[in-house]
Amino acid sequence: MAFTSLRNTASVRRHNLSLLLDTIEALGPISRAGLSRVTGLSQPTVGAAIEALIRSGLVRPVGTGESSGGRPPTMLEFNATHGFVVGIDLGGTNIKVGLTDLRGRVLCRIEEPTPKHQELGPGAVTRAIFGAVERAVDEAEVDWDKVLAIGVGAPGVTDPDTGTVSLAPAVGWEKTPVRSLLSQKFHIPVRVDNDVNAAAMAEQAFGYGREYPSFVFVAIGTGIGAGVVINSQLYRGATCAAGELGYMVIDHAWNPASVRDFGCLESMAAAPAIARYAQRVLAGESRGNAGPSHGTASPSATSVGPEELFKAAEEGYEPAKQAVSQIASYLAAALTNVAVLLDPHAIILGGGISQAGDTLLNPVRERMKQLSPVLPVIRVSALGADAGLLGAAALGIREVKERSLSGE
Amino acid sequence: MAFTSLRNTASVRRHNLSLLLDTIEALGPISRAGLSRVTGLSQPTVGAAIEALIRSGLVRPVGTGESSGGRPPTMLEFNATHGFVVGIDLGGTNIKVGLTDLRGRVLCRIEEPTPKHQELGPGAVTRAIFGAVERAVDEAEVDWDKVLAIGVGAPGVTDPDTGTVSLAPAVGWEKTPVRSLLSQKFHIPVRVDNDVNAAAMAEQAFGYGREYPSFVFVAIGTGIGAGVVINSQLYRGATCAAGELGYMVIDHAWNPASVRDFGCLESMAAAPAIARYAQRVLAGESRGNAGPSHGTASPSATSVGPEELFKAAEEGYEPAKQAVSQIASYLAAALTNVAVLLDPHAIILGGGISQAGDTLLNPVRERMKQLSPVLPVIRVSALGADAGLLGAAALGIREVKERSLSGE
Repeated sequence: MAFTSLRNTASVRRHNLSLLLDTIEALGPISRAGLSRVTGLSQPTVGAAIEALIRSGLVRPVGTGESSGGRPPTMLEFNATHGFVVGIDLGGTNIKVGLTDLRGRVLCRIEEPTPKHQELGPGAVTRAIFGAVERAVDEAEVDWDKVLAIGVGAPGVTDPDTGTVSLAPAVGWEKTPVRSLLSQKFHIPVRVDNDVNAAAMAEQAFGYGREYPSFVFVAIGTGIGAGVVINSQLYRGATCAAGELGYMVIDHAWNPASVRDFGCLESMAAAPAIARYAQRVLAGESRGNAGPSHGTASPSATSVGPEELFKAAEEGYEPAKQAVSQIASYLAAALTNVAVLLDPHAIILGGGISQAGDTLLNPVRERMKQLSPVLPVIRVSALGADAGLLGAAALGIREVKERSLSGE
Repeated sequence: MAFTSLRNTASVRRHNLSLLLDTIEALGPISRAGLSRVTGLSQPTVGAAIEALIRSGLVRPVGTGESSGGRPPTMLEFNATHGFVVGIDLGGTNIKVGLTDLRGRVLCRIEEPTPKHQELGPGAVTRAIFGAVERAVDEAEVDWDKVLAIGVGAPGVTDPDTGTVSLAPAVGWEKTPVRSLLSQKFHIPVRVDNDVNAAAMAEQAFGYGREYPSFVFVAIGTGIGAGVVINSQLYRGATCAAGELGYMVIDHAWNPASVRDFGCLESMAAAPAIARYAQRVLAGESRGNAGPSHGTASPSATSVGPEELFKAAEEGYEPAKQAVSQIASYLAAALTNVAVLLDPHAIILGGGISQAGDTLLNPVRERMKQLSPVLPVIRVSALGADAGLLGAAALGIREVKERSLSGE
């Protein structure tokens, strides 16, 4: 019967531990008195919590600070190399596996083509992951005892509670119990989530998301998806479908052949649609529409894609600029819809297309000023090519911290 | 320095009190043992909390229940008439003021035209509210000592923290300190919010919202707005602008004259747009396009509005059905965008247009099946004409409960 009172006390204690750990990670080296000042927690509370954090290995003393009269205080810092995690960024084209410390610093990365599951079966993908994990830990020359967790970002519908990927056509997985498979193989805790949610967590842990309690991470690549962070918590929705931004309707007359197809927004503004613009515009160019600065080095129509389109627009080639402006107006409509419904502090863009940067973002921002009375900050993720890997690592790091804080 | 530990203990205590009060309100009469079983709280915790709740007046003993061996247990119930609140539903056309008990049962309601602020100044609106509040309390024959709070739903941009309405053109208010004005006049606590947020809270307290931890309340009237409830909390956004659904873009080519105008969605699907459809379709009818069942009783083009359009569609008049189907496709696009971004348990529709019920909702649902892989429950609010009043009362009731639970 005293269970709940205990649980409540335990939850207050866990909240305090978590607050202190975050504060030490952000501000350390810092003294106990400093922690008390910053967090508002009493000195006895801080004292007891710090003992537990030092026992967990996540915090360590690092010499003494300046005295303000009495004995010089012991300074504390986050021990990012107390252990390491493996991040697995699984895509339809490549598998990326990396080993990071507890701050997400990448010690080593492996990248290899995803086995063709159509020929080799979905088990081939699992075996390739096993091999890549072993190689990553070997190459990093880290002792297996120091590898504390594995995080997986999966390209499909994932239940983070069970660690099962229910559907991921890109790798041929259906009802694949990824967590069990990996934890049985490596005997360490595993956390699995879909790749966009993982990337949103990477933003929160290592990227611009650190600055904003509420933000929406939008990944624009082959498809378009979003991770919604509200009051510093990933919001998953009633059926784990929150953030299915690719299905946003920005043309009320749009008629999909089937609701399982690409959604309205991604049909109009994801990488394949942009590639079609590129082909049309840059092929047209070689037929004599070349702008002055671009006519001499026209790529062939078959090799051009989004990158070439954005480059041509940047160089001032008018048909490319018009195409980019059209794509920007689609994205501006969708981001306006995010802004007016959720009023987040920021929208952070990731995925391959976001690499176009201001060439794409400036016309998006201009158009949003016409459409939206609500204008959150819009930024391209700074995490670059490692974003997926860091997202997977962020899952692993979160697993490590939560286990440590709950005393497991 | 012990402040925060105290605060944490106090917040656990307040959480427990709130949980017990909600449980008693939903399930009472109920015994202390029953409460312990339902909430998982220990018997000592329940015992101490119940003493506090009885002292606050919000809970009272009501006889004894069946014994399971020993002494028959005292049963407890929510004391809905411990006090009353005034709800003020302020609109551009009418002021509605009602007195309700703490379960939102309306004892008396006053409705009068909103004074024309253009002629009489914005102070006339405030004076009319003062008078209506006094009359409502008089007519209900309730002692002023029993009136514990006032809630106000205001038709404009409102800061619930300060109780100031920064902009409400419908009543000519600008930076009007509504909370101060009312609390100085009546010497009781006042809570102010915008009318759509208030209506969302009414759904949560008295309507279908009780069934869903996450839902979006969408009001379709002269404009379109939404209240977003996530994990049982109203979500306001970074700048208190969450739920500005009228600005949702469902036509990427839409070009507003100014971002301060009506938004894209409301330009296409709110009451004025629907009225224009009505005029066009039902005027066209009198020019000889009448359907068989509707031709005899054609209303004149100047008197027809949304109600007549929905009625004609219900009666099978083909041009009206087509117009409703078009309006439904606009709304379906917007609700799909809500569904795929937030994946709420439910979308609850309110406002005048929602009264069209299934005539409008069935085509909306059909269209959403084509568009959206995420299909929340969609229902029309059951709160009817009192919705605004109940929303305002819900604000007042919340004020009373929070003050009681925090021991003020």
